[in-house]
Amino acid sequence: MIRLDTRDAGFADAFAALVDDRRESAADVTRDVATMLRAVKDEGAAAVRAFTIKLDRHDPDETGWRIEAATCAAAYAALEPELRAALDLAATRIRAYHEKQRPQDSDYRDAAGVRLGARWRPVDAAGLYVPGGRAAYPSSLLMNAIPAKVAGVERLAMVTPTPDGQINPLVLAAAHLAGVDEVWRIGGAQAVAALAYGAGPIRPVDVVTGPGNAWVAEAKRQLYGVVGIDMVAGPSEIVVVADARNDPEWIAADLLSQAEHDVVTQSILLTDNGDYADRVAAAVERQLDTLATGAVARQAWETNGAIIRVETLAAAMPLVDRLAPEHLQLAVDDPQALFDQVRHAGSVFLGRHTPEAIGDYVAGPNHVLPTGRRARFTSGLSVLDFMKRTSFLGLDESALAELGPATVALAEAEGLPAHARSVALRLRLNR
Amino acid sequence: MIRLDTRDAGFADAFAALVDDRRESAADVTRDVATMLRAVKDEGAAAVRAFTIKLDRHDPDETGWRIEAATCAAAYAALEPELRAALDLAATRIRAYHEKQRPQDSDYRDAAGVRLGARWRPVDAAGLYVPGGRAAYPSSLLMNAIPAKVAGVERLAMVTPTPDGQINPLVLAAAHLAGVDEVWRIGGAQAVAALAYGAGPIRPVDVVTGPGNAWVAEAKRQLYGVVGIDMVAGPSEIVVVADARNDPEWIAADLLSQAEHDVVTQSILLTDNGDYADRVAAAVERQLDTLATGAVARQAWETNGAIIRVETLAAAMPLVDRLAPEHLQLAVDDPQALFDQVRHAGSVFLGRHTPEAIGDYVAGPNHVLPTGRRARFTSGLSVLDFMKRTSFLGLDESALAELGPATVALAEAEGLPAHARSVALRLRLNR
Repeated sequence: MIRLDTRDAGFADAFAALVDDRRESAADVTRDVATMLRAVKDEGAAAVRAFTIKLDRHDPDETGWRIEAATCAAAYAALEPELRAALDLAATRIRAYHEKQRPQDSDYRDAAGVRLGARWRPVDAAGLYVPGGRAAYPSSLLMNAIPAKVAGVERLAMVTPTPDGQINPLVLAAAHLAGVDEVWRIGGAQAVAALAYGAGPIRPVDVVTGPGNAWVAEAKRQLYGVVGIDMVAGPSEIVVVADARNDPEWIAADLLSQAEHDVVTQSILLTDNGDYADRVAAAVERQLDTLATGAVARQAWETNGAIIRVETLAAAMPLVDRLAPEHLQLAVDDPQALFDQVRHAGSVFLGRHTPEAIGDYVAGPNHVLPTGRRARFTSGLSVLDFMKRTSFLGLDESALAELGPATVALAEAEGLPAHARSVALRLRLNR
Repeated sequence: MIRLDTRDAGFADAFAALVDDRRESAADVTRDVATMLRAVKDEGAAAVRAFTIKLDRHDPDETGWRIEAATCAAAYAALEPELRAALDLAATRIRAYHEKQRPQDSDYRDAAGVRLGARWRPVDAAGLYVPGGRAAYPSSLLMNAIPAKVAGVERLAMVTPTPDGQINPLVLAAAHLAGVDEVWRIGGAQAVAALAYGAGPIRPVDVVTGPGNAWVAEAKRQLYGVVGIDMVAGPSEIVVVADARNDPEWIAADLLSQAEHDVVTQSILLTDNGDYADRVAAAVERQLDTLATGAVARQAWETNGAIIRVETLAAAMPLVDRLAPEHLQLAVDDPQALFDQVRHAGSVFLGRHTPEAIGDYVAGPNHVLPTGRRARFTSGLSVLDFMKRTSFLGLDESALAELGPATVALAEAEGLPAHARSVALRLRLNR
């Protein structure tokens, strides 16, 4: 953890280093992934099977490629009631929030008599990657699957690795709840390739979303254009802006809730009170000792954590914009005043009683958010990621008479005579 | 040009081959582009200058890096009046259409007392690639720049190659009209890298859009994630669905208006009348002989063109969906009935008097559209490509009391105790 103070001489450089530190995989997986994608494209299921035997240590021809809907339904039914109710509440609230994202079609006629508009339709099929192992989160499954279903996607195919053949009942229960149509027990770059190109029993999809390790992320990046993808995702991050009137233990827990995800995550506190900064730092140390995820969280906090003392919280907001954080907590009495200043953030958590964790699960907004300063130019996952827009236009003879001559002039200026002719013929102009 | 008939025995295979034919660059530019991007990232303006001297045969240190606003204004003022009026009409109509795309913010409180919403903001800076040479189209500049300006982007930086130092006055005039803030006379992959990373006088941008050759497209693909990009673009295509009541000359001109762009473009006619198909084919031959762009158009038509005879036009629509064309013309009396069946198309041109060329210039909808079957999952360029959405949520004590316990249950089930603690502390639960 580094401590910075905006009054320090070296602050500008130290802060710039923090902004530029992307903490993304240095491992050059580009070539390995390219080879794997090519193999799946050329050899289909045989390549997927071979990679799965090698990397996940089970043979899908024996363990089965697909997990049946009945198995998922049984996993849901077997959930402990409190947990099932929590998952139900999360699904209901996520659905309600995302239903408001459905885009409006338009269809109108303008003054020139031209019919104009745009029509949104869902993609035919979406693929959803769900990691195995430590990052196998049923909440992520809901956050990816529900927007696709709200968009109206008819076929939602999920892939999830089952290392050594082991399946995760909580993930299957969430798949049942979210209405996933197909569950395939494969993972890694080979599973992303199977979704994009199709392989054996797996038919190709149009969009692939969902989190994964560096190989999965690189596979999605390389397949972008063959299919749509949600985004290039990197390590998670949180920025907490807090005054001294917050319980330091609350803020410490907020910082650690990001740190416990992975050793590459980043937690940053911005506060206007140096003594308070000390108290939060001490609370973080205390909590680390009692946390089951303490080893991961400690490494993340010590390597990537930061506490920045600022003159005023208002003065902190330009720094926040430069960080363009995935998560931004504004733990003050009047968060709106600070929020009005924010240009770049994935999701903002307003007030002292809105810890980031509430947004990870049940609040409703999506927790798949831009990382690594990408909130400068991209948005969290939404219904729009599973839809596309067709524009349309219609002219009658009179509208064409009005717009045609300008079209002919521009086409001729651009050296495109067939363009000009297609209009001129209809106008009975002699071109 | 190939002729197909849905009644033929080999139709399914022949049509599948047409669908799979992406006509995209086979040249492996991946490694070359990666080297160029790395050089610009590491060496900045020096690398951009070296590539420009080598590839565009002028030295920006001598010819000047930047084209001044006054030069663009002068180019606009010097336009022949009819052409200037046409460009003005195009800009006005494009702006009017795109203003309707501005997204709505939301901000509401739900039954649990949770404040929820989403807020859209423009990116700070956008970069616009404008090709030189044959594909230097002022219309493309308008189609890229105006949505950015409608989005509210404050800094719009354009790059355009000036091979041998030659500038294109029509492009500069369009830059003036569209309100481009900076014009840099560089092109190629090195210019895309300069926009993404910054180089010398060029500050980095957040989003890069605009058409280009295979190197430019690959540079954008590789930089996706460092910046936002519009899309992976391939060769252009048109599908025309026409009954026998259209003048064959009109439809022939429509097919050729796509073919004249480039030898890799694709024009496909679907019609329910074999004799009419013959008449259009003959008209294409006749027009090719009188077209200044005939050599390019002939090669495109002969290599990639197709005429498909279908039983009925309604039966053609599932074939259209499999092609997911960039442009779809429905040249019939009642286009709406066919349009209702369409799931996948970039832009649809309704009726006999709506040639595709009208949409290229003045109708208003964007002409930057998904190619290579990508209309299955992506949309034409819009104001949204220059904006991003920040979700937000705010809970008070009572709302947290309602949603907190489910969050704690889910966090514990996922093995994330700091997440649980950040909520439990605020609920004064003992965890």
